[in-house]
Amino acid sequence: MKIEAVDFFYLSMPVVTDAGDGSQDALVVRVHAGGITAWGECEASPLTSIAAFVCPMSHGACRPVAASVLGEDVSSPADIARIAATIQWNSMDLLQAAHTWSGIEIALWDLLGRQRGEPVYRLLGYDRAYPKLAYASQLFGDTPQETLESCSAVRKAGYRAVKCGWGPFGRGSLKEDADHLAAAREGIGPDGMLLIDAGQIWGEDVAAAEARLPLLEGVKATWLEEPFHGSAYAAYGALAKKTRSVKLAGGEAAHNVFMARHTIDYGRVSFIQIDCGRIGGIGPAKQVADYAAGKGVTYVNHTFTSHLALCASIQPYAGLADHRICEYPVKPQPMAWEMCATHIAPDRNGEIRVPDAPGLGITVDGASMKKYLVDAEIRVNGKLLYRTPSLD
Amino acid sequence: MKIEAVDFFYLSMPVVTDAGDGSQDALVVRVHAGGITAWGECEASPLTSIAAFVCPMSHGACRPVAASVLGEDVSSPADIARIAATIQWNSMDLLQAAHTWSGIEIALWDLLGRQRGEPVYRLLGYDRAYPKLAYASQLFGDTPQETLESCSAVRKAGYRAVKCGWGPFGRGSLKEDADHLAAAREGIGPDGMLLIDAGQIWGEDVAAAEARLPLLEGVKATWLEEPFHGSAYAAYGALAKKTRSVKLAGGEAAHNVFMARHTIDYGRVSFIQIDCGRIGGIGPAKQVADYAAGKGVTYVNHTFTSHLALCASIQPYAGLADHRICEYPVKPQPMAWEMCATHIAPDRNGEIRVPDAPGLGITVDGASMKKYLVDAEIRVNGKLLYRTPSLD
Repeated sequence: MKIEAVDFFYLSMPVVTDAGDGSQDALVVRVHAGGITAWGECEASPLTSIAAFVCPMSHGACRPVAASVLGEDVSSPADIARIAATIQWNSMDLLQAAHTWSGIEIALWDLLGRQRGEPVYRLLGYDRAYPKLAYASQLFGDTPQETLESCSAVRKAGYRAVKCGWGPFGRGSLKEDADHLAAAREGIGPDGMLLIDAGQIWGEDVAAAEARLPLLEGVKATWLEEPFHGSAYAAYGALAKKTRSVKLAGGEAAHNVFMARHTIDYGRVSFIQIDCGRIGGIGPAKQVADYAAGKGVTYVNHTFTSHLALCASIQPYAGLADHRICEYPVKPQPMAWEMCATHIAPDRNGEIRVPDAPGLGITVDGASMKKYLVDAEIRVNGKLLYRTPSLD
Repeated sequence: MKIEAVDFFYLSMPVVTDAGDGSQDALVVRVHAGGITAWGECEASPLTSIAAFVCPMSHGACRPVAASVLGEDVSSPADIARIAATIQWNSMDLLQAAHTWSGIEIALWDLLGRQRGEPVYRLLGYDRAYPKLAYASQLFGDTPQETLESCSAVRKAGYRAVKCGWGPFGRGSLKEDADHLAAAREGIGPDGMLLIDAGQIWGEDVAAAEARLPLLEGVKATWLEEPFHGSAYAAYGALAKKTRSVKLAGGEAAHNVFMARHTIDYGRVSFIQIDCGRIGGIGPAKQVADYAAGKGVTYVNHTFTSHLALCASIQPYAGLADHRICEYPVKPQPMAWEMCATHIAPDRNGEIRVPDAPGLGITVDGASMKKYLVDAEIRVNGKLLYRTPSLD
């Protein structure tokens, strides 16, 4: 199938706040090839990723992503890997290219799956998809009381695991952090799984993170996520040596497979979290899943927008029975929810399953997408390089 | 001084080819503050970096670079570091942000230097700037004969060191590489310093790179640069163990200080090459220079565009007498040459000196920049977010 068209749709809530809530906008990718329409999603900063697709070439190793994609043939997973390798070379000096390509790559897996009538995880070599324990991924409340209420709410909704992140955590005193952690534990209950996301708050300050370990152990947290800058492997490795029951999680910032491997090898995380919308899509994420499994590290998806992105994020480890935990954005903005007509809902055990339908198995909702569609236009020397395409 | 305006100027040759020649376009940054006009330059893909400056916020950790810069006070180097830290946090999920910020950061050093009447290297804590041995940085010829001619030409022009990179090297047989290397050595002469840049050609294939080591030793090359993907530290480290007289160089892809440190610590390079237009500007580059000096690793600038970028690239290690080698783009495109009214020329010993004038000490040529100015425009929901500003 020849890639005939790649269209980007920038969706956004009418008002975007400075909360750490990644579901406030989205960059959806539509690919047309062989009479089939397929869909993918990039993570973060839609306008910048669109620019990386359409920008004029700077030189041979800094070409726009479009130059390596349009007109290419995609008939097998090897073709997707071939295009990925071309982009890595041709857009070596274009930093944003990995994020732009990620959404296209996801759409190409959706395309192949739709053409072959197979779910994506089968194209990746998995015989079956195992259920995953959905953890309700949400932000800390502004107060411990709010944290308690939100964790109680997800427990009542049937979740057996919760992640609290960002907000006030790590910004104030140990006492304030301890109060939030106690509230979260009380909310999810004594048997619930509790995960804590520090959102890089300590930069590379190992001592600041280490000071929280006893608090985290006290509430039986399963992991401490992103204590440091995504590239601060040495700090991760130093903190890993200090951990006992609480393990480290990280890796969402990885924009290539090397960075994920480094997070495992140098950073000594026990949970490697991969965002398919950043690392270059589903193919490289599957490579990380294989690598993690070989190292005794647990693979976890990272996702915080739509169910299209959620579904893509699960494929790389769908067939790994022992890698059980799955990020599930529990309070997405209306835009992120409504843009999909089909959703992945937790069952009574708090478990989710990827659809068994062809491709990603997610149907987008064009009418809802139109409600949130952002009108963008990029011109260079009078030539129109991008204008929001029609959803029809 | 309050940052009143940050303007981006996208310059380009009329025709951009797919040669690995980074001087075909440029993104120049102009900052107005405290009645002073200062200049900086970002590396690669101007349109994408402009988009990262003006894009709408996606969420609290994915804000446009502009949001952390405009209106800020800059009265000391600490203020520049403060803004850098703010951007690292506020634009954590905006991959391109590091490249965009780099040019602004450079301009802020130029600003402080102009205000204080001091060259930037003094603001960095250096008492004096040592002369650097300029290596003529150029591409391999298409044939060994062309490589011979270009290396002979730079030798005749007074250079005592040459770097050949990209082009056919590493793409064909060992024999073809050997012929190019012999031609380069013949061209620069028996006493000249010969540096070889593989331009990431072997991905992470250590054996392919190792096979070239005897050839490089045979022509007494000083370094092998970027044999692998910029993040493939393990491959660098494995190859470093195999080297004898030829040492490894790398690091130009680093877009934060951590990555540069990893290239030293895990990649075991002997020469760390930093591009100020990518790593976040002069401040982080100086941190890398200090780190390298402490580890017995030689710092080298990476630059391939204008003399504005060249001058910025030398500041971080201007005062390190033992770090002698300096990349000097020898055949820049007319745009990259003409955009500066002042230049840094090698003396009879093939050495260059950074200007002792305030700031970066480079005067831009507005009239010449106008000749190459690209007209760009970005609109979102009818609102003009960017239009090429006036150079007057």
